[in-house]
Amino acid sequence: MNITETKSIKTFDGFTKYFEHDSNITKTKMNFSVFTPKAEVKNAIIWLSGLTCTEENFITKAGAQAYLKDSNTMIICPDTSPRGLDLPGEHESYDFGSGAGFYINSTTENYKNNYRMYDYIKEEVVNILKENFKVTDISIMGHSMGGHGALILGLKEKNLFKSVSAFSPIVNPTKSPWGQKAFKGYLADEKEALLYDATELIKTGITRDDKILIDQGRSDQFLEEHLLTENIVNQARESGQKLEVKYRDGYDHSYFYISSFIGEHIEFHLKSLNK
Amino acid sequence: MNITETKSIKTFDGFTKYFEHDSNITKTKMNFSVFTPKAEVKNAIIWLSGLTCTEENFITKAGAQAYLKDSNTMIICPDTSPRGLDLPGEHESYDFGSGAGFYINSTTENYKNNYRMYDYIKEEVVNILKENFKVTDISIMGHSMGGHGALILGLKEKNLFKSVSAFSPIVNPTKSPWGQKAFKGYLADEKEALLYDATELIKTGITRDDKILIDQGRSDQFLEEHLLTENIVNQARESGQKLEVKYRDGYDHSYFYISSFIGEHIEFHLKSLNK
Repeated sequence: MNITETKSIKTFDGFTKYFEHDSNITKTKMNFSVFTPKAEVKNAIIWLSGLTCTEENFITKAGAQAYLKDSNTMIICPDTSPRGLDLPGEHESYDFGSGAGFYINSTTENYKNNYRMYDYIKEEVVNILKENFKVTDISIMGHSMGGHGALILGLKEKNLFKSVSAFSPIVNPTKSPWGQKAFKGYLADEKEALLYDATELIKTGITRDDKILIDQGRSDQFLEEHLLTENIVNQARESGQKLEVKYRDGYDHSYFYISSFIGEHIEFHLKSLNK
Repeated sequence: MNITETKSIKTFDGFTKYFEHDSNITKTKMNFSVFTPKAEVKNAIIWLSGLTCTEENFITKAGAQAYLKDSNTMIICPDTSPRGLDLPGEHESYDFGSGAGFYINSTTENYKNNYRMYDYIKEEVVNILKENFKVTDISIMGHSMGGHGALILGLKEKNLFKSVSAFSPIVNPTKSPWGQKAFKGYLADEKEALLYDATELIKTGITRDDKILIDQGRSDQFLEEHLLTENIVNQARESGQKLEVKYRDGYDHSYFYISSFIGEHIEFHLKSLNK
């Protein structure tokens, strides 16, 4: 895959880098950032960001480099939607269109040619990791909308991802106003929504053999309306999906919260990547 | 001092907080951020940011909280200039006026009533630490323009600050285009500039008994024109000021660089604060 490095900044003896490339799937330029540690890279973690984010937020704010510096594992942070388009309604709200791709393949007339973030991650980002960075094994995690993305990709592509974790994920988007709005705009048939809802996937028997890790602040302002963590807890229990939810007293939805626990998540992934 | 908390976000078992207050020195509202660890706070480090920064950059990007979380030491990050004014020329360039206070007391007609960042740090920020946060001992550090600020405050107020360090500081601003431009705009008499130049201060015998720590990336794009690190190295040697400069191969001027070594600087300050 032809990717162009746009920035390279030495960080913790390794490099934080930014790239752009032409995507065959979204038919646009796409951006991503990475951190590659000093050692030869063997594995990767994909980080999927939340609403309004770009490839920039996690790599500048989460402090993840400090926990990866002595590993053989890189991290890659894709953008959250195609950019540079002007589709109907694409730039009108923070929770739909640009910055809000929801990691699904759109089937509506206006969006289906470009908003194919599920395939973009599953195929193109994975190919970039394997071909351009010579990565063997891959894990996936994310935050909020990106936590939802990590869960659905991790459940449906269980052989592709060695482990799955999420911060403050939208675990049941068909019951969440954020998810309902996005799915309505991106999906032509409302039944398709069930294919992109972690709780619903588990309900239909799409599960992983390993334990999924979810991290959730108890003072998260979106917990009750949008995130609905207990829905996946209940469904996982019923369906026998191993799931650990770490509730954190007093923590909110921010990158300050993520930075406080990103070390634990990286440790979780490094264990399965080095098995 | 009357300060108003505008945000409080749980971070690493402590809190990242933002405050505003009316400054008697700048005659404006001033903003600052802090991280207070879980333990009772005894000491503080003041962080002075560089050109274009606000109270936001360091606290979101440097990853310092991870290194302070188990200490009894808070960090405070003041804004880099007064805000909310519209003085002649104040908002025309990134390296003068708003976002570029240079930690000096202005004496020019246009700026002397508000741009008094030296006294603001030395008096008001220190008072806030002592009165509002019950801090005993204080150290100071900063980056670029803020590294300059840390050096001049640390040299001139040596009894006020227990230790001094700087990332990529402007060590000799009277020889640097950034410093020359700022001092010309802020200072009525060019001789005053020598009072705010770390290398010149050391030359005139204003020194500290303890070792100053400077960190400098060798791939910093501003090193040769603006930072002039070797000037303070030579002057310190000549004047007997203990100084350690850690040159870092391949590192630039960014927060990625700062985040890579902020742990070492915090360790340096914690040692002298807990003596």
